[in-house]
Amino acid sequence: MSLPPVIVLVRPQLGENIGKAARGMLNFGLVEMRLVTPRDGWPNPSAGPAASGADIVLERAQVFDSVAAAVADCPHVYATTVRKRGVTKPVVTPEQAARAIHAAPGRAAILFGPERSGLETDDVALAREIITVPINAEFGSLNLAQAVILVAYEWSKGIGTGEGALASPPETDLPQPAPQEELDGMIGQLDAMLEEANFFYPPARTPVTRRTLRTLLTKPGWSSQEVRTMRGVLSALSGKKGPRG
Amino acid sequence: MSLPPVIVLVRPQLGENIGKAARGMLNFGLVEMRLVTPRDGWPNPSAGPAASGADIVLERAQVFDSVAAAVADCPHVYATTVRKRGVTKPVVTPEQAARAIHAAPGRAAILFGPERSGLETDDVALAREIITVPINAEFGSLNLAQAVILVAYEWSKGIGTGEGALASPPETDLPQPAPQEELDGMIGQLDAMLEEANFFYPPARTPVTRRTLRTLLTKPGWSSQEVRTMRGVLSALSGKKGPRG
Repeated sequence: MSLPPVIVLVRPQLGENIGKAARGMLNFGLVEMRLVTPRDGWPNPSAGPAASGADIVLERAQVFDSVAAAVADCPHVYATTVRKRGVTKPVVTPEQAARAIHAAPGRAAILFGPERSGLETDDVALAREIITVPINAEFGSLNLAQAVILVAYEWSKGIGTGEGALASPPETDLPQPAPQEELDGMIGQLDAMLEEANFFYPPARTPVTRRTLRTLLTKPGWSSQEVRTMRGVLSALSGKKGPRG
Repeated sequence: MSLPPVIVLVRPQLGENIGKAARGMLNFGLVEMRLVTPRDGWPNPSAGPAASGADIVLERAQVFDSVAAAVADCPHVYATTVRKRGVTKPVVTPEQAARAIHAAPGRAAILFGPERSGLETDDVALAREIITVPINAEFGSLNLAQAVILVAYEWSKGIGTGEGALASPPETDLPQPAPQEELDGMIGQLDAMLEEANFFYPPARTPVTRRTLRTLLTKPGWSSQEVRTMRGVLSALSGKKGPRG
């Protein structure tokens, strides 16, 4: 069975919501929470009371200063968002995501944005897929803790089915995507080369171009081996002596 | 399609929780709430703010002085409880209950007990089946609103795609993979550059390396736009003036 997913709260605002999310996680068997630059620092005295006893989740919570750092060891990154137009990544329900997480080897991270604004485009760019809870189109008002609970609840359905109870295809034959930090290393290498080649022009469009490239290179879900191959390709193209001489 | 179920809050204590339950209901398309002798009377000024805009549910809420009166018009009555020993009725998950509710003609009512104590034995006696959310046995701490939300969420999955269906992920927004010839054009361009960079060495391994690269570049399923972007990247790296000049 695959590892339980990591819940990543990106720039959460209220300690109370962090506590409620922890409670929802533990209710459904999830214990690993990561926090990216929580607004009011960490630990937060409001989190404990709201967790109603889920202290173990709060005690183990780790703080990171960027989303990239928080998901560096995770080959599968999901971003939760409300319904959006013009999304260029696969959008799945919590149910579909839960099934995929159970089927795939390697750790998954699920990103949840700040209470008021949700995830920013740059956060979403780090993810391969988007999780959207199908909700009343005329009244979509899911708060942070509720979103965490629904995702955890769906994930919990897939545990305890017994060893080999479900006849699944042998997904483990597929190489798993490389951890995020390996992907970032490749993107960084390409970026430096493109900078030198004057690709980012005009400067005003650079952030958009960078995001486009990141999305494009995140999409394949390349394995560690594939990422190494691509880095060999880039080294060859940059004229540096690669491992192939 | 059967009617949406009625949510019955039995002797609820805090107006805030009634409001949160209303919000959770409306998120997933349920609007009919019934209240059995709410502790602090009705209307309750704390309910509105907690409902975050789900006022229609609160405005329509009806008050009854017994559980029997509240479910008098409903042929299917479910009681939600935490896991209990010695239960002499069928126990189903929210998922199973939702399926049964969609399949059965006639209205269903779902009973939720007071925050602190849950439903009493006499309340449960009115129900034909019991709904229990499968939860962490060592940390079961679902509050009233969360229980309502999970039940409403499961019900909403069965609404289907017709009128009144909830907003589903916009799968059609995803761009289609580029036609094979566009992919081949990109691979050809890269191949020529790698040839020049002396990447294919030793010659005996060239076919394998070419196949590896093709596999790797086929995997993403890049769209036409993405393939064009990659060709722009390659042109920039090869020092040729691309469209970005």
